[in-house]
Amino acid sequence: MREVTYGGAVSLDGFLAGVDGAIDWLHFSKDVHQAMAEYWKGVDTILMGRKTWDFAASQGGGRFGGPMRTIVFSRTLREISDAHVELINVDAANFVRDLKRQPGGEICLMGGGELAQSLLAAGLVDRIRLNVHPILLGSGIPTFRDAGKRVHLKLESCREIEGGCLLAYYEVISTRNGEPARDGL
Amino acid sequence: MREVTYGGAVSLDGFLAGVDGAIDWLHFSKDVHQAMAEYWKGVDTILMGRKTWDFAASQGGGRFGGPMRTIVFSRTLREISDAHVELINVDAANFVRDLKRQPGGEICLMGGGELAQSLLAAGLVDRIRLNVHPILLGSGIPTFRDAGKRVHLKLESCREIEGGCLLAYYEVISTRNGEPARDGL
Repeated sequence: MREVTYGGAVSLDGFLAGVDGAIDWLHFSKDVHQAMAEYWKGVDTILMGRKTWDFAASQGGGRFGGPMRTIVFSRTLREISDAHVELINVDAANFVRDLKRQPGGEICLMGGGELAQSLLAAGLVDRIRLNVHPILLGSGIPTFRDAGKRVHLKLESCREIEGGCLLAYYEVISTRNGEPARDGL
Repeated sequence: MREVTYGGAVSLDGFLAGVDGAIDWLHFSKDVHQAMAEYWKGVDTILMGRKTWDFAASQGGGRFGGPMRTIVFSRTLREISDAHVELINVDAANFVRDLKRQPGGEICLMGGGELAQSLLAAGLVDRIRLNVHPILLGSGIPTFRDAGKRVHLKLESCREIEGGCLLAYYEVISTRNGEPARDGL
């Protein structure tokens, strides 16, 4: 079964971007590039929601070249003017559940947190990989939204990298347990 | 100058307690007790807001024994029926600014995040110490609220402890820089 990984840079107070999508606080380093290069080796499919697509497109990017399959989920977009990007209008969870059963490499779920929220709720995210930055942004776009249930994780590894950032890798446990909503409350 | 430390256990998505103050997800271990014992050695004063006081009192606690000075900030409470607890109705930031100049040990700021928010905004918090638990709660009481400006931190140390928890200790940098509100945005 192919694995879905969610994550990226996050402030200590849980934002993937500041107000108006500000990412000027991101700290890039050789360590980050190495970790990303290592991660991307296994990935052949990228999932993103409409807002992330808009942001990526506004930055002049969005589509990833080569053999990478790029899938954008949206209920409102009618087309994407890039023949190499697939636009999916059906339910994301059903689509991803099917996708994971197909042969292929790792699947990267790119934030904005809304698509992640629905896929976490559906138990379809297998790993969370964060690069925790030493800053409190106060407000912005949250990495995690309420999935409607607790999601139990297992810490795989954590290490400090350049700039006081923490690479923290988790495995999602409750995906496999099929845990009921709002356990223990 | 005495230092103010804020922190405690936190879910990976940034909650110090779940819905209705749920803390059944907290993982206690020998590692946690050792870290707490080490920390408490230097502390002689505890600050908390009214909600934290209510919660502590409802749990049968609240006041800490021995030489510990316990201070509760509230604009609405008129008295606390414990002669060993000080109730402060004046502006918390001014009070704490003055308190830090007095001789004494470390000052522990206990969560709920509202008092922390105002003291972070006023540049009066020196250290943040988190015990990051491997769980996404989805909703609850946030550890950090919007301080109205970015707060820059320096990672002091991070280590994995029993249960896949991470002890991450930070120094607050912008307290000392007197950084203006909403820098860089």
